[in-house]
Amino acid sequence: MQIENHIFHSASFAELIDAAVGFMCNTPMVTLPPDEKFSGGGVYALYYQGNFPQYQAIFAVDPNLPIYVGKAVFPGWRKGKGSAKQNDPALYSRLSEYARSLKAAVNLELSDFLCRFIILQSQEADLISTVEAAMTRKYRPLWNSYIDGFGNHDPRKGRYQQAKSEWDMLHPGRVWAERLRGVPPDVNQIAEKVDHYHAPRQT
Amino acid sequence: MQIENHIFHSASFAELIDAAVGFMCNTPMVTLPPDEKFSGGGVYALYYQGNFPQYQAIFAVDPNLPIYVGKAVFPGWRKGKGSAKQNDPALYSRLSEYARSLKAAVNLELSDFLCRFIILQSQEADLISTVEAAMTRKYRPLWNSYIDGFGNHDPRKGRYQQAKSEWDMLHPGRVWAERLRGVPPDVNQIAEKVDHYHAPRQT
Repeated sequence: MQIENHIFHSASFAELIDAAVGFMCNTPMVTLPPDEKFSGGGVYALYYQGNFPQYQAIFAVDPNLPIYVGKAVFPGWRKGKGSAKQNDPALYSRLSEYARSLKAAVNLELSDFLCRFIILQSQEADLISTVEAAMTRKYRPLWNSYIDGFGNHDPRKGRYQQAKSEWDMLHPGRVWAERLRGVPPDVNQIAEKVDHYHAPRQT
Repeated sequence: MQIENHIFHSASFAELIDAAVGFMCNTPMVTLPPDEKFSGGGVYALYYQGNFPQYQAIFAVDPNLPIYVGKAVFPGWRKGKGSAKQNDPALYSRLSEYARSLKAAVNLELSDFLCRFIILQSQEADLISTVEAAMTRKYRPLWNSYIDGFGNHDPRKGRYQQAKSEWDMLHPGRVWAERLRGVPPDVNQIAEKVDHYHAPRQT
Protein backbone atom coordinates (compact mmCIF):
# COMPACT_ATOMS: atom_id res chain seq x y z
CA MET A 1 0.00 0.00 0.00
CA GLN A 2 1.44 3.36 -0.99
CA ILE A 3 -0.10 5.80 1.40
CA GLU A 4 0.59 8.85 -0.77
CA ASN A 5 -1.88 7.50 -3.32
CA HIS A 6 -4.59 8.08 -0.72
CA ILE A 7 -3.77 11.68 0.24
CA PHE A 8 -5.91 14.34 -1.42
CA HIS A 9 -4.23 17.71 -1.95
CA SER A 10 -5.95 20.78 -3.34
CA ALA A 11 -4.14 24.01 -4.00
CA SER A 12 -7.38 25.58 -5.17
CA PHE A 13 -8.98 25.06 -1.76
CA ALA A 14 -6.54 27.52 -0.18
CA GLU A 15 -7.27 29.99 -3.00
CA LEU A 16 -10.98 29.59 -2.46
CA ILE A 17 -10.70 30.33 1.27
CA ASP A 18 -8.62 33.40 0.49
CA ALA A 19 -11.31 34.50 -1.97
CA ALA A 20 -14.03 34.10 0.65
CA VAL A 21 -12.02 36.04 3.25
CA GLY A 22 -11.27 38.75 0.68
CA PHE A 23 -14.94 38.94 -0.25
CA MET A 24 -15.91 39.27 3.40
CA CYS A 25 -13.38 42.01 4.10
CA ASN A 26 -14.85 44.03 1.24
CA THR A 27 -18.48 43.80 2.26
CA PRO A 28 -19.95 47.02 3.62
CA MET A 29 -19.91 47.60 7.38
CA VAL A 30 -23.44 47.79 8.75
CA THR A 31 -25.08 48.46 12.09
CA LEU A 32 -25.44 45.82 14.75
CA PRO A 33 -27.87 44.19 14.35
CA PRO A 34 -28.34 44.81 10.61
CA ASP A 35 -31.42 46.90 9.88
CA GLU A 36 -33.18 44.12 8.02
CA LYS A 37 -33.88 40.53 9.05
CA PHE A 38 -32.46 37.86 6.71
CA SER A 39 -32.20 34.07 6.64
CA GLY A 40 -29.21 31.78 6.40
CA GLY A 41 -26.01 30.98 8.23
CA GLY A 42 -22.60 32.49 7.75
CA VAL A 43 -19.67 34.34 9.26
CA TYR A 44 -19.54 37.77 10.89
CA ALA A 45 -16.98 40.18 12.26
CA LEU A 46 -17.59 42.94 14.81
CA TYR A 47 -15.73 46.26 14.73
CA TYR A 48 -15.36 48.78 17.55
CA GLN A 49 -15.17 52.52 17.02
CA GLY A 50 -15.83 53.85 20.52
CA ASN A 51 -13.62 55.33 23.19
CA PHE A 52 -13.31 52.63 25.84
CA PRO A 53 -9.81 53.67 26.96
CA GLN A 54 -7.93 50.42 26.49
CA TYR A 55 -9.57 49.69 23.14
CA GLN A 56 -9.37 53.08 21.52
CA ALA A 57 -5.61 52.83 20.97
CA ILE A 58 -6.01 49.46 19.26
CA PHE A 59 -8.89 50.13 16.90
CA ALA A 60 -8.28 53.76 16.00
CA VAL A 61 -5.11 52.59 14.22
CA ASP A 62 -6.92 50.07 12.03
CA PRO A 63 -10.69 50.37 11.63
CA ASN A 64 -10.64 47.13 9.62
CA LEU A 65 -9.36 45.11 12.57
CA PRO A 66 -12.28 43.14 14.03
CA ILE A 67 -12.70 42.83 17.79
CA TYR A 68 -14.60 39.56 17.38
CA VAL A 69 -15.26 36.98 14.66
CA GLY A 70 -17.90 34.26 14.80
CA LYS A 71 -20.17 32.01 12.83
CA ALA A 72 -23.76 30.87 12.84
CA VAL A 73 -24.82 27.54 11.37
CA PHE A 74 -28.41 26.43 11.41
CA PRO A 75 -28.89 23.15 13.21
CA GLY A 76 -28.98 20.02 11.11
CA TRP A 77 -28.34 21.76 7.80
CA ARG A 78 -25.89 19.11 6.67
CA LYS A 79 -28.55 16.43 6.93
CA GLY A 80 -30.46 18.39 4.31
CA LYS A 81 -33.77 17.45 5.89
CA GLY A 82 -36.04 19.91 4.15
CA SER A 83 -34.81 23.13 2.63
CA ALA A 84 -37.08 24.91 5.13
CA LYS A 85 -34.00 25.15 7.33
CA GLN A 86 -32.51 27.56 4.79
CA ASN A 87 -35.09 30.05 6.04
CA ASP A 88 -33.80 29.95 9.59
CA PRO A 89 -32.41 33.42 10.39
CA ALA A 90 -29.43 31.82 12.18
CA LEU A 91 -26.91 34.56 11.45
CA TYR A 92 -29.29 37.44 12.01
CA SER A 93 -30.40 35.94 15.33
CA ARG A 94 -26.83 35.58 16.52
CA LEU A 95 -26.06 39.20 15.66
CA SER A 96 -29.19 40.30 17.51
CA GLU A 97 -28.19 38.28 20.56
CA TYR A 98 -24.77 39.93 20.59
CA ALA A 99 -26.33 43.34 20.19
CA ARG A 100 -28.22 42.64 23.44
CA SER A 101 -24.97 41.63 25.20
CA LEU A 102 -23.27 44.84 24.11
CA LYS A 103 -26.25 46.95 25.08
CA ALA A 104 -26.24 45.37 28.55
CA ALA A 105 -22.55 46.15 29.17
CA VAL A 106 -22.27 49.23 31.39
CA ASN A 107 -19.12 50.58 29.72
CA LEU A 108 -19.85 49.92 26.04
CA GLU A 109 -22.26 51.61 23.63
CA LEU A 110 -23.99 49.43 21.07
CA SER A 111 -23.84 52.28 18.56
CA ASP A 112 -20.02 52.14 18.69
CA PHE A 113 -20.11 48.74 16.98
CA LEU A 114 -20.41 47.88 13.32
CA CYS A 115 -20.35 44.50 11.64
CA ARG A 116 -19.48 42.75 8.44
CA PHE A 117 -21.15 39.47 7.58
CA ILE A 118 -21.35 36.98 4.75
CA ILE A 119 -24.10 34.47 4.12
CA LEU A 120 -23.01 31.02 2.96
CA GLN A 121 -25.89 29.00 1.59
CA SER A 122 -26.47 25.67 -0.24
CA GLN A 123 -23.16 23.91 -0.87
CA GLU A 124 -21.16 26.95 0.28
CA ALA A 125 -22.63 26.47 3.78
CA ASP A 126 -19.95 23.77 4.13
CA LEU A 127 -17.39 26.59 4.18
CA ILE A 128 -18.75 28.39 7.25
CA SER A 129 -16.38 26.92 9.82
CA THR A 130 -13.45 27.12 7.42
CA VAL A 131 -13.96 30.81 6.71
CA GLU A 132 -14.50 31.60 10.39
CA ALA A 133 -11.24 29.84 11.25
CA ALA A 134 -9.39 31.67 8.45
CA MET A 135 -10.70 35.06 9.63
CA THR A 136 -9.73 34.27 13.23
CA ARG A 137 -6.24 33.21 12.19
CA LYS A 138 -5.85 36.31 10.03
CA TYR A 139 -6.79 38.82 12.74
CA ARG A 140 -6.56 37.00 16.10
CA PRO A 141 -9.36 39.27 17.34
CA LEU A 142 -9.11 40.57 20.91
CA TRP A 143 -12.32 38.91 22.09
CA ASN A 144 -11.51 35.61 20.39
CA SER A 145 -7.85 35.10 21.13
CA TYR A 146 -7.09 37.19 24.25
CA ILE A 147 -10.21 37.86 26.31
CA ASP A 148 -12.52 34.90 26.93
CA GLY A 149 -16.25 34.87 27.36
CA PHE A 150 -18.00 37.27 24.98
CA GLY A 151 -19.60 34.36 23.12
CA ASN A 152 -20.80 32.63 26.31
CA HIS A 153 -24.48 31.94 26.88
CA ASP A 154 -26.63 31.98 29.98
CA PRO A 155 -25.75 28.66 31.72
CA ARG A 156 -29.36 28.56 33.07
CA LYS A 157 -30.75 27.32 36.34
CA GLY A 158 -28.60 25.38 38.73
CA ARG A 159 -25.36 26.17 36.91
CA TYR A 160 -24.59 29.62 38.31
CA GLN A 161 -21.76 28.25 40.46
CA GLN A 162 -19.47 28.97 37.50
CA ALA A 163 -17.14 31.97 37.55
CA LYS A 164 -17.68 35.13 35.50
CA SER A 165 -15.66 35.21 32.32
CA GLU A 166 -12.87 37.67 31.60
CA TRP A 167 -15.19 39.51 29.22
CA ASP A 168 -17.91 39.84 31.85
CA MET A 169 -15.39 41.17 34.38
CA LEU A 170 -14.23 43.79 31.89
CA HIS A 171 -17.74 44.65 30.70
CA PRO A 172 -20.22 43.95 33.52
CA GLY A 173 -23.92 44.18 32.83
CA ARG A 174 -25.30 40.96 31.32
CA VAL A 175 -28.01 39.90 33.76
CA TRP A 176 -27.11 36.20 33.73
CA ALA A 177 -23.40 36.91 34.14
CA GLU A 178 -24.09 38.92 37.30
CA ARG A 179 -25.64 35.77 38.80
CA LEU A 180 -22.43 33.73 38.52
CA ARG A 181 -20.92 32.92 41.89
CA GLY A 182 -17.54 31.27 41.12
CA VAL A 183 -14.19 32.91 41.90
CA PRO A 184 -13.75 35.44 39.10
CA PRO A 185 -10.51 36.07 37.19
CA ASP A 186 -8.36 39.00 38.36
CA VAL A 187 -9.33 42.29 36.70
CA ASN A 188 -5.76 43.60 36.65
CA GLN A 189 -4.52 40.55 34.83
CA ILE A 190 -7.27 40.94 32.26
CA ALA A 191 -6.34 44.59 31.70
CA GLU A 192 -2.75 43.52 31.26
CA LYS A 193 -3.78 41.00 28.61
CA VAL A 194 -5.54 43.75 26.68
CA ASP A 195 -2.44 45.95 26.90
CA HIS A 196 -0.34 43.16 25.43
CA TYR A 197 -2.66 42.58 22.49
CA HIS A 198 -1.01 42.59 19.10
CA ALA A 199 -2.95 41.98 15.94
CA PRO A 200 -1.00 40.03 13.33
CA ARG A 201 0.65 42.30 10.77
CA GLN A 202 -1.49 42.29 7.60
CA THR A 203 0.39 42.00 4.35
CA MET B 1 -28.82 47.13 2.97
CA GLN B 2 -28.64 45.01 -0.16
CA ILE B 3 -28.50 41.47 1.09
CA GLU B 4 -27.09 40.05 -2.16
CA ASN B 5 -23.87 41.99 -1.50
CA HIS B 6 -23.35 39.71 1.51
CA ILE B 7 -23.88 36.34 -0.16
CA PHE B 8 -20.72 34.48 -1.11
CA HIS B 9 -20.99 32.18 -4.13
CA SER B 10 -18.24 29.92 -5.38
CA ALA B 11 -18.57 27.82 -8.49
CA SER B 12 -15.09 26.44 -7.92
CA PHE B 13 -16.13 24.92 -4.59
CA ALA B 14 -18.50 22.52 -6.34
CA GLU B 15 -15.71 21.63 -8.80
CA LEU B 16 -13.33 21.01 -5.94
CA ILE B 17 -15.74 18.63 -4.21
CA ASP B 18 -16.25 16.78 -7.49
CA ALA B 19 -12.48 16.53 -7.84
CA ALA B 20 -12.15 15.09 -4.33
CA VAL B 21 -14.94 12.56 -4.95
CA GLY B 22 -13.38 11.64 -8.31
CA PHE B 23 -9.99 11.22 -6.66
CA MET B 24 -11.48 8.98 -4.00
CA CYS B 25 -13.33 6.78 -6.49
CA ASN B 26 -10.04 6.17 -8.29
CA THR B 27 -7.97 5.17 -5.28
CA PRO B 28 -7.13 1.48 -5.12
CA MET B 29 -9.42 -0.83 -3.11
CA VAL B 30 -7.57 -2.33 -0.19
CA THR B 31 -8.29 -4.84 2.56
CA LEU B 32 -10.19 -3.95 5.69
CA PRO B 33 -8.42 -2.82 7.77
CA PRO B 34 -5.60 -1.63 5.48
CA ASP B 35 -2.42 -3.65 5.94
CA GLU B 36 -0.44 -0.69 7.27
CA LYS B 37 -1.24 1.74 10.08
CA PHE B 38 -1.32 5.43 9.07
CA SER B 39 -2.18 8.73 10.70
CA GLY B 40 -4.72 11.38 9.81
CA GLY B 41 -8.44 11.79 9.32
CA GLY B 42 -10.43 11.38 6.13
CA VAL B 43 -13.24 9.62 4.32
CA TYR B 44 -13.72 5.93 3.58
CA ALA B 45 -16.07 3.71 1.62
CA LEU B 46 -16.69 -0.01 2.22
CA TYR B 47 -17.43 -2.45 -0.60
CA TYR B 48 -19.01 -5.88 -0.34
CA GLN B 49 -18.12 -8.78 -2.62
CA GLY B 50 -19.60 -11.73 -0.73
CA ASN B 51 -22.67 -13.86 -1.21
CA PHE B 52 -25.08 -12.79 1.53
CA PRO B 53 -28.22 -13.53 -0.49
CA GLN B 54 -29.94 -10.17 -0.34
CA TYR B 55 -26.75 -8.25 -1.01
CA GLN B 56 -25.26 -10.31 -3.79
CA ALA B 57 -27.78 -9.10 -6.35
CA ILE B 58 -27.03 -5.47 -5.50
CA PHE B 59 -23.26 -5.46 -5.46
CA ALA B 60 -22.48 -8.01 -8.17
CA VAL B 61 -23.97 -5.52 -10.66
CA ASP B 62 -21.69 -2.65 -9.63
CA PRO B 63 -18.54 -3.46 -7.67
CA ASN B 64 -17.92 0.30 -7.33
CA LEU B 65 -21.11 0.81 -5.36
CA PRO B 66 -20.18 1.22 -1.68
CA ILE B 67 -22.28 -0.41 1.03
CA TYR B 68 -21.19 2.21 3.56
CA VAL B 69 -19.46 5.60 3.57
CA GLY B 70 -18.08 7.35 6.62
CA LYS B 71 -15.54 9.80 7.94
CA ALA B 72 -13.04 10.08 10.76
CA VAL B 73 -11.95 13.42 12.13
CA PHE B 74 -9.47 13.68 14.96
CA PRO B 75 -10.87 15.51 17.96
CA GLY B 76 -10.04 19.19 18.26
CA TRP B 77 -8.11 19.42 14.99
CA ARG B 78 -9.74 22.71 14.06
CA LYS B 79 -8.38 24.37 17.17
CA GLY B 80 -4.93 23.58 15.82
CA LYS B 81 -3.61 22.95 19.32
CA GLY B 82 -0.33 21.28 18.46
CA SER B 83 0.28 19.52 15.20
CA ALA B 84 0.74 16.35 17.31
CA LYS B 85 -2.93 15.66 16.59
CA GLN B 86 -2.00 15.13 12.93
CA ASN B 87 -0.37 11.89 14.11
CA ASP B 88 -3.62 10.50 15.51
CA PRO B 89 -4.51 7.42 13.44
CA ALA B 90 -8.18 8.49 13.44
CA LEU B 91 -9.11 6.99 10.08
CA TYR B 92 -7.12 3.79 10.51
CA SER B 93 -8.64 3.26 13.97
CA ARG B 94 -12.16 3.68 12.63
CA LEU B 95 -11.53 1.16 9.86
CA SER B 96 -10.11 -1.30 12.40
CA GLU B 97 -13.16 -0.85 14.62
CA TYR B 98 -15.48 -1.61 11.69
CA ALA B 99 -13.40 -4.63 10.77
CA ARG B 100 -14.14 -5.96 14.27
CA SER B 101 -17.89 -5.33 13.80
CA LEU B 102 -17.91 -7.20 10.51
CA LYS B 103 -15.86 -10.07 11.94
CA ALA B 104 -18.34 -10.40 14.81
CA ALA B 105 -21.37 -10.65 12.50
CA VAL B 106 -22.40 -14.30 12.17
CA ASN B 107 -23.49 -14.04 8.53
CA LEU B 108 -20.74 -11.83 7.06
CA GLU B 109 -17.10 -12.57 6.29
CA LEU B 110 -14.60 -9.80 6.87
CA SER B 111 -12.60 -11.00 3.85
CA ASP B 112 -15.59 -10.21 1.62
CA PHE B 113 -15.08 -6.49 2.29
CA LEU B 114 -12.71 -4.04 0.66
CA CYS B 115 -12.34 -0.32 1.24
CA ARG B 116 -11.31 2.88 -0.40
CA PHE B 117 -10.12 5.77 1.72
CA ILE B 118 -8.65 9.23 1.34
CA ILE B 119 -6.65 11.15 3.90
CA LEU B 120 -7.39 14.87 4.19
CA GLN B 121 -4.73 16.71 6.15
CA SER B 122 -3.78 20.33 7.01
CA GLN B 123 -6.21 22.77 5.40
CA GLU B 124 -7.87 20.00 3.38
CA ALA B 125 -9.04 18.43 6.67
CA ASP B 126 -11.79 21.07 6.51
CA LEU B 127 -13.22 19.13 3.57
CA ILE B 128 -13.77 15.85 5.42
CA SER B 129 -17.47 16.31 6.21
CA THR B 130 -18.13 17.87 2.81
CA VAL B 131 -16.60 14.95 0.91
CA GLU B 132 -18.36 12.40 3.12
CA ALA B 133 -21.70 14.12 2.44
CA ALA B 134 -21.00 14.27 -1.30
CA MET B 135 -20.12 10.56 -1.41
CA THR B 136 -23.24 9.67 0.57
CA ARG B 137 -25.44 11.75 -1.75
CA LYS B 138 -23.81 10.22 -4.82
CA TYR B 139 -24.33 6.59 -3.80
CA ARG B 140 -26.94 6.56 -1.00
CA PRO B 141 -25.19 3.47 0.40
CA LEU B 142 -27.38 0.69 1.78
CA TRP B 143 -26.00 0.93 5.33
CA ASN B 144 -26.16 4.73 5.39
CA SER B 145 -29.50 5.51 3.80
CA TYR B 146 -31.63 2.36 4.21
CA ILE B 147 -30.45 0.18 7.09
CA ASP B 148 -29.63 1.97 10.35
CA GLY B 149 -27.09 1.08 12.96
CA PHE B 150 -23.82 -0.17 11.44
CA GLY B 151 -21.99 2.91 12.72
CA ASN B 152 -23.39 2.62 16.26
CA HIS B 153 -21.10 2.22 19.24
CA ASP B 154 -21.42 0.25 22.45
CA PRO B 155 -23.78 2.42 24.59
CA ARG B 156 -21.92 1.16 27.72
CA LYS B 157 -23.16 0.34 31.18
CA GLY B 158 -26.64 1.25 32.23
CA ARG B 159 -27.80 2.07 28.72
CA TYR B 160 -28.63 -1.38 27.42
CA GLN B 161 -32.37 -0.73 27.62
CA GLN B 162 -32.11 0.56 24.03
CA ALA B 163 -33.35 -1.56 21.14
CA LYS B 164 -31.08 -3.38 18.71
CA SER B 165 -30.59 -1.54 15.45
CA GLU B 166 -31.78 -2.74 12.07
CA TRP B 167 -28.20 -3.60 11.18
CA ASP B 168 -27.73 -5.68 14.31
CA MET B 169 -30.98 -7.55 13.63
CA LEU B 170 -29.80 -8.34 10.10
CA HIS B 171 -26.24 -9.19 11.15
CA PRO B 172 -26.27 -10.43 14.75
CA GLY B 173 -23.00 -11.00 16.57
CA ARG B 174 -21.61 -7.81 18.07
CA VAL B 175 -21.29 -8.60 21.79
CA TRP B 176 -22.63 -5.25 23.00
CA ALA B 177 -25.57 -5.34 20.58
CA GLU B 178 -26.66 -8.72 21.96
CA ARG B 179 -27.00 -7.05 25.37
CA LEU B 180 -29.64 -4.57 24.19
CA ARG B 181 -33.04 -5.21 25.69
CA GLY B 182 -35.41 -2.77 23.91
CA VAL B 183 -38.13 -3.89 21.50
CA PRO B 184 -36.23 -4.61 18.28
CA PRO B 185 -37.38 -3.62 14.77
CA ASP B 186 -39.17 -6.26 12.71
CA VAL B 187 -36.83 -8.46 10.71
CA ASN B 188 -39.24 -8.87 7.81
CA GLN B 189 -39.58 -5.11 7.42
CA ILE B 190 -35.81 -4.75 7.37
CA ALA B 191 -35.51 -7.42 4.67
CA GLU B 192 -38.13 -5.58 2.68
CA LYS B 193 -36.15 -2.35 2.94
CA VAL B 194 -33.11 -4.11 1.52
CA ASP B 195 -35.19 -5.49 -1.35
CA HIS B 196 -36.36 -1.99 -2.18
CA TYR B 197 -32.87 -0.54 -2.25
CA HIS B 198 -32.00 1.43 -5.35
CA ALA B 199 -28.67 3.10 -5.79
CA PRO B 200 -28.86 6.41 -7.66
CA ARG B 201 -28.06 6.04 -11.33
CA GLN B 202 -24.49 7.17 -11.92
CA THR B 203 -23.90 9.39 -14.94
